[in-house]
Amino acid sequence: MAANNMIKAYAAKGPDTKLESYEYDAGPLGRNEVEISVDYCGICHSDLSMLNNEWGMSSYPLVAGHEVVGRISAVGDGVSHLSAGQVVGLGWHAGYCQVCSSCGSGDQNLCAKAEGTIVGRHGGFAEKVRAKAASVVPLPEGMDAKTAGPLFCGGITVFNPLVQFEVKPTDKVAVIGIGGLGHIALQFLRAWGCEVTAFTSSEAKASEAKKLGAHHCLNSRSSSEIEQAAGRFDFIISTVNVKLDWDLYLSTLKPKGRLHFVGATLEPLDLNVFSLIMAQRSVSGSPVGSPATIAKMLEFAVQHDIKPVVEMFKFEQINEAIAHVASGKARYRVVLER
Amino acid sequence: MAANNMIKAYAAKGPDTKLESYEYDAGPLGRNEVEISVDYCGICHSDLSMLNNEWGMSSYPLVAGHEVVGRISAVGDGVSHLSAGQVVGLGWHAGYCQVCSSCGSGDQNLCAKAEGTIVGRHGGFAEKVRAKAASVVPLPEGMDAKTAGPLFCGGITVFNPLVQFEVKPTDKVAVIGIGGLGHIALQFLRAWGCEVTAFTSSEAKASEAKKLGAHHCLNSRSSSEIEQAAGRFDFIISTVNVKLDWDLYLSTLKPKGRLHFVGATLEPLDLNVFSLIMAQRSVSGSPVGSPATIAKMLEFAVQHDIKPVVEMFKFEQINEAIAHVASGKARYRVVLER
Repeated sequence: MAANNMIKAYAAKGPDTKLESYEYDAGPLGRNEVEISVDYCGICHSDLSMLNNEWGMSSYPLVAGHEVVGRISAVGDGVSHLSAGQVVGLGWHAGYCQVCSSCGSGDQNLCAKAEGTIVGRHGGFAEKVRAKAASVVPLPEGMDAKTAGPLFCGGITVFNPLVQFEVKPTDKVAVIGIGGLGHIALQFLRAWGCEVTAFTSSEAKASEAKKLGAHHCLNSRSSSEIEQAAGRFDFIISTVNVKLDWDLYLSTLKPKGRLHFVGATLEPLDLNVFSLIMAQRSVSGSPVGSPATIAKMLEFAVQHDIKPVVEMFKFEQINEAIAHVASGKARYRVVLER
Repeated sequence: MAANNMIKAYAAKGPDTKLESYEYDAGPLGRNEVEISVDYCGICHSDLSMLNNEWGMSSYPLVAGHEVVGRISAVGDGVSHLSAGQVVGLGWHAGYCQVCSSCGSGDQNLCAKAEGTIVGRHGGFAEKVRAKAASVVPLPEGMDAKTAGPLFCGGITVFNPLVQFEVKPTDKVAVIGIGGLGHIALQFLRAWGCEVTAFTSSEAKASEAKKLGAHHCLNSRSSSEIEQAAGRFDFIISTVNVKLDWDLYLSTLKPKGRLHFVGATLEPLDLNVFSLIMAQRSVSGSPVGSPATIAKMLEFAVQHDIKPVVEMFKFEQINEAIAHVASGKARYRVVLER
């Protein structure tokens, strides 16, 4: 029966190489695993980082892809809550320890032993992908499968902070960086009831940001525009991976305001302690979200007709698709389809 | 009647000078003010900073002192909730705008127009001090007036974060720096029900910290001791004004943990964004607390017999007392008495 466990995929054989067809033996399906027949897979910047070993934790051949939507094609013996044929999604995590304090508290995304879908495992740039059933979330009725993939990483990354920090509909919220993550954040925040401001350095994106839900746009690189926003926001989500004048952004927060990072800059945040102390401000970060929060997000997205804006590529065009993401020109997320 | 408004005080005539006797005309008592006959006044490091114009906002002659305990000696026409003879305390703030969003939300300490007791006003190193009645808090029955002064600045500064961030009795909490603020924090946290760890670089203070409530002590300058505490704390309060390896301290926080600054370092916090993101950690700061939180703290202190550990000096010895604070040898707070 070994043939059943062979999976056709696209793999990198090393950093900075093109992906090639690759077939691997996934072995017998684990008792608590499911196998998903991949219909769609989004391309996230962290796929590129892993393909190119930017974080020093890649092993090759590497099959990336962690914004998967597909149908369950096989179910492990221990799995009772999912069944073959169900349309599901899979994001950054493909399993959790299930027994640590974080898992027990509903914070599986903070589990120190959480398994990355593309870290030491093979991901969704493939015909099929395997994952622990606990990390797989069914698509709710009415959800568009074609555009849903990016919600499972980019989407949950910006939705989760709204839940974690109890952002209120009366809050004034800003999003820094209108790309794969930011363009979804604008939609969520608009539906959340907030006054929404987009910080972007791109003139073209500013007008698109308004269509996506922003009430206001400010130039993320204009000190004078930022200074005029002093004391204005309850919450700021930064999705960028470049260094900005963070202390200046802190000044745009109200008392008790929060600057929250979901995009990581390599340079340290050189924050002035007084900026935090004088107005009881917070700075924080978070990674993706738990399966329960993903499910909540999907329902909210259906309820409010929120969809990632995607550009579709065929799986056979995967190298062109990746080059397009790398160019920074994707508007706003690239999704692979069969 | 002008003579009634003359107040005898100790003032600095400029930075880095000894305090001298000084008498000033406080003018007619404001409608919403009270006058306090000063019995005790603690000396805080921020008195020294103001006396020496370290923050560039001092005007001379400057009467410092903002940890006042005394009896109300006069009450403005508009004040109905306080009366002459009442024993009260006065801290960093001597008034609030009362109409801004922060004031309206019970966060008077974050009011952008809050008046500092020693900023553009004359403070408690004097026979009498004036303040808006809203900023003055009566001592509850059973409170020792002699040691209460330091609660009004040092005490509330470390108590307020426990309220603001809903620290739980099941939390494991660390205090960095066991001085004027830290030694009170240890007592509050022990009474709060927490497992308490003191970070100090002083061997002598480590044993005293245990008497004050710490269950454990770690060397704040030992990387290896800090590394062994990885993932241990829910909450860390830093009271120090020196640069430490903050990223290393972040690693001692559990998922969702918070590093909170009440002491300000002049060097920026060079934090690694990944340290925040990967475990949803927060970094924050806060200044003193609201009058309602001060009242809550005073009741909690009486309930649990919590007292600042003080060294008493007579008001006439004020220059020796200040030199003792400046030396860093005070154990743990200096209080002036008549």
